[in-house]
Amino acid sequence: MLLEFTMFPMDKGESVSPWVSRCLEIIDKSGLDYRLNPMGTVLEGEWDEAFGVVKQCFDAMRRDCKRISVRLKIDYREGRRGALMSKIASVEKGVGKTLKK
Amino acid sequence: MLLEFTMFPMDKGESVSPWVSRCLEIIDKSGLDYRLNPMGTVLEGEWDEAFGVVKQCFDAMRRDCKRISVRLKIDYREGRRGALMSKIASVEKGVGKTLKK
Amino acid sequence: MLLEFTMFPMDKGESVSPWVSRCLEIIDKSGLDYRLNPMGTVLEGEWDEAFGVVKQCFDAMRRDCKRISVRLKIDYREGRRGALMSKIASVEKGVGKTLKK
Amino acid sequence: MLLEFTMFPMDKGESVSPWVSRCLEIIDKSGLDYRLNPMGTVLEGEWDEAFGVVKQCFDAMRRDCKRISVRLKIDYREGRRGALMSKIASVEKGVGKTLKK
Repeated sequence: MLLEFTMFPMDKGESVSPWVSRCLEIIDKSGLDYRLNPMGTVLEGEWDEAFGVVKQCFDAMRRDCKRISVRLKIDYREGRRGALMSKIASVEKGVGKTLKK
Repeated sequence: MLLEFTMFPMDKGESVSPWVSRCLEIIDKSGLDYRLNPMGTVLEGEWDEAFGVVKQCFDAMRRDCKRISVRLKIDYREGRRGALMSKIASVEKGVGKTLKK
Repeated sequence: MLLEFTMFPMDKGESVSPWVSRCLEIIDKSGLDYRLNPMGTVLEGEWDEAFGVVKQCFDAMRRDCKRISVRLKIDYREGRRGALMSKIASVEKGVGKTLKK
Repeated sequence: MLLEFTMFPMDKGESVSPWVSRCLEIIDKSGLDYRLNPMGTVLEGEWDEAFGVVKQCFDAMRRDCKRISVRLKIDYREGRRGALMSKIASVEKGVGKTLKK
């Protein structure tokens, strides 16, 4: 299962990177495979482990944030592993060239 | 906390309402307050209870679906209750008229 | 086509309803059919007319906002009209009861 | 402005990469800077140019798809350019290490 999420405080003004960095520390230590992109982070794992990491991020953020926005997308495919790599590979194969990533 | 989500199978063709109905039965029996809209369902509850319902819907769907797409938005506001009603009310107050809902 | 969107400033602190109200005034005057829910607004229309309204909201918001977050979902179904009503009706028919909305 | 989007047909079964590849060809030729990730594509550009590309993808997809799902996120920041690179850089600086991307 792939889970992409974006989480940020709404009460801290325009610049939210300190809180995003706090989440990425948790994700990086979680042991789950992940990829950071300019609009969010994609985790690969089972439902409970992926949501366990998201919950840890949320708990770390609400320690000092009064309003938090979270957006999450899941792509579940039965029996599929390694989708972090294989989805991009199959699009590049379809296009017939290496794409920016 | 408000949690809006949309969940549907990607391997069942154009019409997915039987699977959406299966989710709404679970939500309606969950005891959490909710509102169905044309693009998703908004639940109000604490993190664990709201995600508990989402997980039940997912488990009910993957019994017979091989690929499932989920989209989720959370609006958390410290100490806030009754946001299902109060958010719409404050927008209507701002606009100064009753809106379609 | 149904288009749901949420748009809010990230540099105005915890309470954003004045800016959301500004959008709803635009939507309500647009002539497109819509439904406000606690997490966003669903418009029904063709691509150009629906995105025209979203753009008007964005222009109205960036007059005095330095950072803006937008989330958008589209459900396009060839030849379908009246989906604001019919999607909810078909779920209620599937569940066999009236749901909260 | 950064715009991330995911677009896929709902009436073509479990595997949708041929249609995603069709979009990536359009994006790659558009001249806009972009990054493909496992759950979507992030474009950088002004409102009209970014949505122009999204619309081209949609038009290419509805030639042979009856139902299409689109999800879109925008992060607008006044006067900001180069956010495809700078957002990741500022998170890595905050964490104090290179992250997977």
